[in-house]
Amino acid sequence: MPLPHIFLLAGLLLTGSAGMAVAAETPPAASPDQARNVILIIGDGMDEQQITIARNYLTGAAGELLLDRMPMRGAVQVLTQEDSREGAPVYVADSANTATSLATGAVTSRGRIATSAGADEPLPTLVELAAQAGLRTGLVTTASVTDATPAAFAAHINFRLCENPATMVDVNYRGIPLGDCSNHLKANGGGGSIAEQLAASDVDIILGGGSKHFEPHAEGEQSSVLALAREAGFEILSNAQELAAATQDPAPLPGQRILGLFSASTMPVRLQGESERGAEDPDPSLLNYIHPYLGDVTLPAPLRCEPNPEFDAVPTLQAMTELALKRLSQHNSRGFFLMVESASIDKQSHERKPCGSIGEVEQLNEALAAALSFARQQPQTLILVTADHAQAAQLIPEHSLFEAYPVPTFTPGKLARIVTPEGVTMAVNYATTNFIMEEHTGAAVPLFGNREAVGVVPPFVRQPQLFEIMRQYLGL
Amino acid sequence: MPLPHIFLLAGLLLTGSAGMAVAAETPPAASPDQARNVILIIGDGMDEQQITIARNYLTGAAGELLLDRMPMRGAVQVLTQEDSREGAPVYVADSANTATSLATGAVTSRGRIATSAGADEPLPTLVELAAQAGLRTGLVTTASVTDATPAAFAAHINFRLCENPATMVDVNYRGIPLGDCSNHLKANGGGGSIAEQLAASDVDIILGGGSKHFEPHAEGEQSSVLALAREAGFEILSNAQELAAATQDPAPLPGQRILGLFSASTMPVRLQGESERGAEDPDPSLLNYIHPYLGDVTLPAPLRCEPNPEFDAVPTLQAMTELALKRLSQHNSRGFFLMVESASIDKQSHERKPCGSIGEVEQLNEALAAALSFARQQPQTLILVTADHAQAAQLIPEHSLFEAYPVPTFTPGKLARIVTPEGVTMAVNYATTNFIMEEHTGAAVPLFGNREAVGVVPPFVRQPQLFEIMRQYLGL
Repeated sequence: MPLPHIFLLAGLLLTGSAGMAVAAETPPAASPDQARNVILIIGDGMDEQQITIARNYLTGAAGELLLDRMPMRGAVQVLTQEDSREGAPVYVADSANTATSLATGAVTSRGRIATSAGADEPLPTLVELAAQAGLRTGLVTTASVTDATPAAFAAHINFRLCENPATMVDVNYRGIPLGDCSNHLKANGGGGSIAEQLAASDVDIILGGGSKHFEPHAEGEQSSVLALAREAGFEILSNAQELAAATQDPAPLPGQRILGLFSASTMPVRLQGESERGAEDPDPSLLNYIHPYLGDVTLPAPLRCEPNPEFDAVPTLQAMTELALKRLSQHNSRGFFLMVESASIDKQSHERKPCGSIGEVEQLNEALAAALSFARQQPQTLILVTADHAQAAQLIPEHSLFEAYPVPTFTPGKLARIVTPEGVTMAVNYATTNFIMEEHTGAAVPLFGNREAVGVVPPFVRQPQLFEIMRQYLGL
Repeated sequence: MPLPHIFLLAGLLLTGSAGMAVAAETPPAASPDQARNVILIIGDGMDEQQITIARNYLTGAAGELLLDRMPMRGAVQVLTQEDSREGAPVYVADSANTATSLATGAVTSRGRIATSAGADEPLPTLVELAAQAGLRTGLVTTASVTDATPAAFAAHINFRLCENPATMVDVNYRGIPLGDCSNHLKANGGGGSIAEQLAASDVDIILGGGSKHFEPHAEGEQSSVLALAREAGFEILSNAQELAAATQDPAPLPGQRILGLFSASTMPVRLQGESERGAEDPDPSLLNYIHPYLGDVTLPAPLRCEPNPEFDAVPTLQAMTELALKRLSQHNSRGFFLMVESASIDKQSHERKPCGSIGEVEQLNEALAAALSFARQQPQTLILVTADHAQAAQLIPEHSLFEAYPVPTFTPGKLARIVTPEGVTMAVNYATTNFIMEEHTGAAVPLFGNREAVGVVPPFVRQPQLFEIMRQYLGL
């Protein structure tokens, strides 16, 4: 299979070295006809602020995450447009349109799952192209498997919240209309909800949360979506023990497809603030309302992160990734595409819970360790790690640069003062909105690659280019 | 005392390709004994948010800056500590301690200029090491040349605001004590203020703003600091015409040193908001004060960026960089070190003026163009571009992800809604503090390198490592 010439940057890092930080390592020789694999790891909302916050907490400020040891690092400009055929640019994305860019190479509008802006036409996804070419495919996430990021790789629908047959028409929140997917009902010639599309898909391994979306009756059927998935050949896993047994199975049925649903919706996160605290409002005294130079302010008390007991009940992202890698590579001469998402960096940030986001960055690094370990055995494996969009958290000074001035200063947003294992306090604010959920932000996002990415992936790309890079690497 | 300045405690690949976007280009062959040069370009506060905001405005969301065509891209973890010998980590930096890291390889505390935390001992700088080894050196900035970033490359003092002989003892703002540099008075065996140290330094080319810091009498002298600089051998330039004449001079005196001071303090920026507007407070209606779901909100009106007329009176960063490169390289077999700073990405962000920051990113890209052009003639030139620390601006949605909910949502910080040349509106908020100046943030910062950096600079470094990389490249 020809190398992806378009992206070949001759001479870049010929040695594949990450410089001083990473020891040189000679890969096993790869035969030219060996299967090629792509592992795309998405940290939802994992921008440079989120990574630094996690690094400071998990390794200390002078430490480094596994991410930091990747030999290729770059940036990805996120592109979004208004919902019309020639839509104007929109500078802040959501996870649906960004996953669509990664999965299909197209720029679309917020909320869309692998459908085109305005025209609402299905866009072929990397998973579909791979399956058609005989490669295996997998989707692993800590969100519901029907959530926007995994969905955009294997389903086509105009609105991300149409996750199951009961949420297809007049999707609303207590009477507030949010969207509608009537055109995609099976009765109208569509593919039905995201869960129904996944159940009918060619994907080999689907692991994550979201069992509640498989419980309703499928449209026009007497059985649940889950039953349809089982009929379509999926083995169903529902807890960590079953996942572990499947991973240890010495002789699984060749080609057995798996749907693992380990929680009702988003999977529980690893870390939480003590007493489930997140960022809170600074509390200025009465005089401060009269003039901002008067009075005083009480900041939220320092916050420790602690293990979330609910996390013990579900498999880790690493464990899910390991099962996926094992099954996708077994007796497979053609290669595979696997998407792995650490979803709650974003979701916990929406809820202003920095401990939760930190734990999810840790999960992502563990899943990356599993991917790198796999790639040591199968060197023709391109590993890319990126985020879909930037998010609200900002690492701000615990002690103001201006603290010499005897006036109360504090963020107008919400503030968490996290006690780190280094024994000092790290201040994180959330101030994109006064709404109950924070907004995404628009910064370009980080990109990391293993040595297969060196010379193949330019240091600056627009998000849709990543689709092209992966497609060409797989020879699709 | 002129207003906010006292507040400013902060102040390819081998073939030359940037991938698809840039045509391959064969460099002139370099002889092994050719002089080696380092050009370090610092975008003060230029984090990924600032770059994306500038990219969207200057090139459109799908465009790319010259920065984006650099063959090497990475990230730099910024390190800061408390002001004691074994100081605990501090997670958000200022420009003084970060410039000290870049200039000396040491981690120090906020406000310090090339002195050690706690011990207050001088730390040898790259400029000093280079000069001792016979290399030429230059410092170019759009700030005062006495400001923290340039200062840390050629001066040693405990507090960054001790910029001139009149600000050495009990530095205060209207009676509020900010710091003191008595120990560094010449009378006490020190080197005096930053301006005095620059006047007495070995630096060959110093260009920027800050003439007011050279006007006071030098400590213990009857003449001004500027007169001392002239006596020490500096040719003084004071306007764009003189700079242009010096650049065009066909036969300058060999080795003539230059001090160019083109404005009283920080140089005027290129772009400003119409009517000098910056980010402003959203204005909620009365009912909204009763409950955040009630009432309405009036957002600041859209804002156009326009040229700042004062900018025409001063040389561009590119013009200053071109003079520096010309003089530093002329009849020079030993090489040089040049630091170029675009200072007001940070300063305008402190003042919540996104148009100003955008224009300064543009200036940085133009200075980079000059550096890359030079390196095409002298290939043994390492060009690094980085930021010293992250800053407050955040690109947030112009239309909320949650706009279906009929409640007024808006950032609790200040908001600018910038009309871009693409004809749409880009929302930028500032919400680190309610103080009159925004705070820095703590994210790792971007790093860019030319082809000389490829294979030499790892994709992830801590800030002090950049000093080591530059030192080793220059053979110091």
